[in-house]
Amino acid sequence: MAPEPRESRSSPSSLPESALSSSLGDLDPEAFRAAGHQVVDLIADYLAGVERYPVLPPIEPGALRPLFPAAPPETGEPIEAILADYRRLVEPNATHWQHPGFLAYFATSASSPGILGEMLTAALGQNPMLWRTSPIGTELEIVVVDWLRQALGLPAPFDGLLTDTASTSSLIALAGARQAAGIDAAAAGLTGRDLPALRIYASAEAHSSIEKACMTLGLGRAALVRIPTDDAYAMLPEELEAAIGRDREADRRPIAIVATIGTTSSTAIDPVARIAGIAEREGLWLHVDGAYAGAAALIPARRAAFTGWERADSIVVNPHKWFFTPLDASLLLTRRMPTLRDAFSLVPEYLRTLDREAPVRDFNEYTPQLGRRFRALKLWVQLRSFGLEGLRRRVEEHIRLAQEFAAWVDADPDFERLAPVPFSTVCFRFAPPVLARHEDHPAHRRRLDELNARLMDAVNRSGEVFLSHTRLDDRFTIRVAIGNLRTEERHVARAWELIRREADRLAVELE
Amino acid sequence: MAPEPRESRSSPSSLPESALSSSLGDLDPEAFRAAGHQVVDLIADYLAGVERYPVLPPIEPGALRPLFPAAPPETGEPIEAILADYRRLVEPNATHWQHPGFLAYFATSASSPGILGEMLTAALGQNPMLWRTSPIGTELEIVVVDWLRQALGLPAPFDGLLTDTASTSSLIALAGARQAAGIDAAAAGLTGRDLPALRIYASAEAHSSIEKACMTLGLGRAALVRIPTDDAYAMLPEELEAAIGRDREADRRPIAIVATIGTTSSTAIDPVARIAGIAEREGLWLHVDGAYAGAAALIPARRAAFTGWERADSIVVNPHKWFFTPLDASLLLTRRMPTLRDAFSLVPEYLRTLDREAPVRDFNEYTPQLGRRFRALKLWVQLRSFGLEGLRRRVEEHIRLAQEFAAWVDADPDFERLAPVPFSTVCFRFAPPVLARHEDHPAHRRRLDELNARLMDAVNRSGEVFLSHTRLDDRFTIRVAIGNLRTEERHVARAWELIRREADRLAVELE
Repeated sequence: MAPEPRESRSSPSSLPESALSSSLGDLDPEAFRAAGHQVVDLIADYLAGVERYPVLPPIEPGALRPLFPAAPPETGEPIEAILADYRRLVEPNATHWQHPGFLAYFATSASSPGILGEMLTAALGQNPMLWRTSPIGTELEIVVVDWLRQALGLPAPFDGLLTDTASTSSLIALAGARQAAGIDAAAAGLTGRDLPALRIYASAEAHSSIEKACMTLGLGRAALVRIPTDDAYAMLPEELEAAIGRDREADRRPIAIVATIGTTSSTAIDPVARIAGIAEREGLWLHVDGAYAGAAALIPARRAAFTGWERADSIVVNPHKWFFTPLDASLLLTRRMPTLRDAFSLVPEYLRTLDREAPVRDFNEYTPQLGRRFRALKLWVQLRSFGLEGLRRRVEEHIRLAQEFAAWVDADPDFERLAPVPFSTVCFRFAPPVLARHEDHPAHRRRLDELNARLMDAVNRSGEVFLSHTRLDDRFTIRVAIGNLRTEERHVARAWELIRREADRLAVELE
Repeated sequence: MAPEPRESRSSPSSLPESALSSSLGDLDPEAFRAAGHQVVDLIADYLAGVERYPVLPPIEPGALRPLFPAAPPETGEPIEAILADYRRLVEPNATHWQHPGFLAYFATSASSPGILGEMLTAALGQNPMLWRTSPIGTELEIVVVDWLRQALGLPAPFDGLLTDTASTSSLIALAGARQAAGIDAAAAGLTGRDLPALRIYASAEAHSSIEKACMTLGLGRAALVRIPTDDAYAMLPEELEAAIGRDREADRRPIAIVATIGTTSSTAIDPVARIAGIAEREGLWLHVDGAYAGAAALIPARRAAFTGWERADSIVVNPHKWFFTPLDASLLLTRRMPTLRDAFSLVPEYLRTLDREAPVRDFNEYTPQLGRRFRALKLWVQLRSFGLEGLRRRVEEHIRLAQEFAAWVDADPDFERLAPVPFSTVCFRFAPPVLARHEDHPAHRRRLDELNARLMDAVNRSGEVFLSHTRLDDRFTIRVAIGNLRTEERHVARAWELIRREADRLAVELE
């Protein structure tokens, strides 16, 4: 028999029972309660006052590291001291994605219900890798994924999962395409087999995450064939067909097409219905990247832009973009869950559960990662708090603000709009006629690029807004991307005021 | 000139200014404050009362989905109603990773300071993909990664980053190995090139994430050569050398070795120093998986188990395991950051910043994902609250508890310990002599497996503890893995009591 454990003697070096949890830096539940209330107040104050901060902190790279000790702390410190340092060192040196003047990239703003959801997520500590390791994490993910599918107007054959980012969602989709190509890359790999070169097609404007997925998956950047676009930066389907034909003739093997609804540079819309027809004829996996613009499909009247995506094999839409859910939350929908499972499933003995005798979903079988966060919780809290109505009204309002901004640009002879505005992002540049009319001259063209870079930099230095840029038709292009939960008309108007003001300053130089 | 934006008229359909943020389901800062305080109380009550829940909810797969509406909510609801449903539907149906009786897999428990850190992370909404998009997120990650490197006793050439999970960290490391092989897989890919089969070596006991990384990276499961282990489940270096030799002779190309310190099944320790010598002679990338056991390296007196890992090209250690940091947080250390950058860097125009003229770190260049969470924040809060001392004392105490549990197993003639206990995990089985002495007989062997599966299941159904299993030497093996922040001696003793009680019940059947 074993020694009676209740009577076992602790060794002299051991701590008395329950001494550990209430000392040495962890907080017992009552101390957590007190500290948690402080943190909530700190957060509420931050959200109330975020506009007092410049969106971009006025510092240079390398300025922050020396503010922190070079060596890790040996002994614990009171939480109050840490929170004081958070206010002093962390908060002011953030780029304020929560600031309503954040108009760069695509917005990721965290709604208040989403933040509450993240608080609960952290405390409940779920890891829904297996049903057994989180029944609620698994089944609520199934519920929320299906809610989102319905909200986006997609048919029931679409199933799916939540991942961290669109990069991961698209990587999983393209791993599915690779698996569907019939060469069982998951088992046999791509080397030592004399396989033809695999090819994936996307527009010249497709997001870098598609190219990165090719790198990760062993297809390489060379596998991505960039298809030319029309004047509105949308993929030319005839060019797509031609490229596929050329590759087949050269004994390369096409496996997938990526169509984008809402490209990153200019929010262009690839002609998905025509592309879907090509994918079907050619037997290729169709992946639709709607990471940003997918939110517009919440609005039935806006679904014309999405025609054809219901024929895709997979679709990515990011709740952490225009759905205002805290980072990270990406939705991957697919008609082909079993293929994703073929691409990623491994069930070693230590993950085998008795539940597997029932038809159980263990989400880790569909992802490159084993461990997973309980992302469905914050989505559930937020969707119930907002209702679809709350999402739709905001998305509609952002589209309206973007149209308004575009009208200001169009009405100004010193400015030029550089792309259509189908969603909530406006691409434009400062193009005073004195320079723009001689743009054929390379020196004038360079001058315009420089002027716009300086204009954007000056506006960003105001601290009131943050704009980012891209290149369209090889021209430096300023983007105003509206999609922050807290952005109102006054912020967009102020952005235009600042742009005009800096443009006037620069115009003096041109005289 | 543009219309004066301050005077622009909203269209009739638009909402009045600031109506959006205070309605339609988002909470204004004061409403957030009130709801946040409720959530903090809910969390504190949960942490104080988690032991009242069974660790595993007593439900079957599929039981939860019908509790939620099939369709998404059209209109918003008050946060109080959502929180009430959280208590009613979510909390009781979680697997309680925070419960001190959670002794399955490897623990992931969220410390209180870590939860506070996650609250701040959600509210501050950083995306440290570029320095510019989060200066503090970028530089605090550099600080915290270096703190952890020092805390683990590793030399300064190790640099690194935080990822979500060990799966991603190991995938990045092996992508580095693939890139270092000189075939520029990132650019040219692995197909259409007549490349030799690439090979990666790991022990038969290495984690499934290594095999999954091979699948994702296009190497395939076939690329992973499983090296036999000794009686203690540690890799046999002579078998490793022989396997490499066989592959070279067959014109396959070895690229990496993965050594594990603390395997998932039995926490075995591969002989890293000898393996490092082989890697150096053979010119192979050495990746060390210390996802769980790496925490023991915080204790200088425990570093003998890690001898040789300082010679690795890359190392993964998971703060969200034995460091008590909320999921997700994995640390990837490497001497070869530039190679990781070669494997993953893409800088499209819309991500190009003026900062890039300075030597700036943009962390997205080292990862398959573009978007990233600000994981350094919770680590900074927790490391300062605990101090290294707080981590070390807990890890040391868990090792002591495991030794104690192992002694109870060893002293009990009805039980058999199945592996050494170098860290905090005990592998054993119920092996009553009447069956065990005839184990050569297949029927007896099956009987032992069945008995142990039933024993584990019965113990888990008590709700007081949760144990998981593995197979060692083809025997059903119960694991008691101690690593939950809140586990104390009484929980481990109670686990043993329950195991003994169920064993006694089963023994009746054997008479």
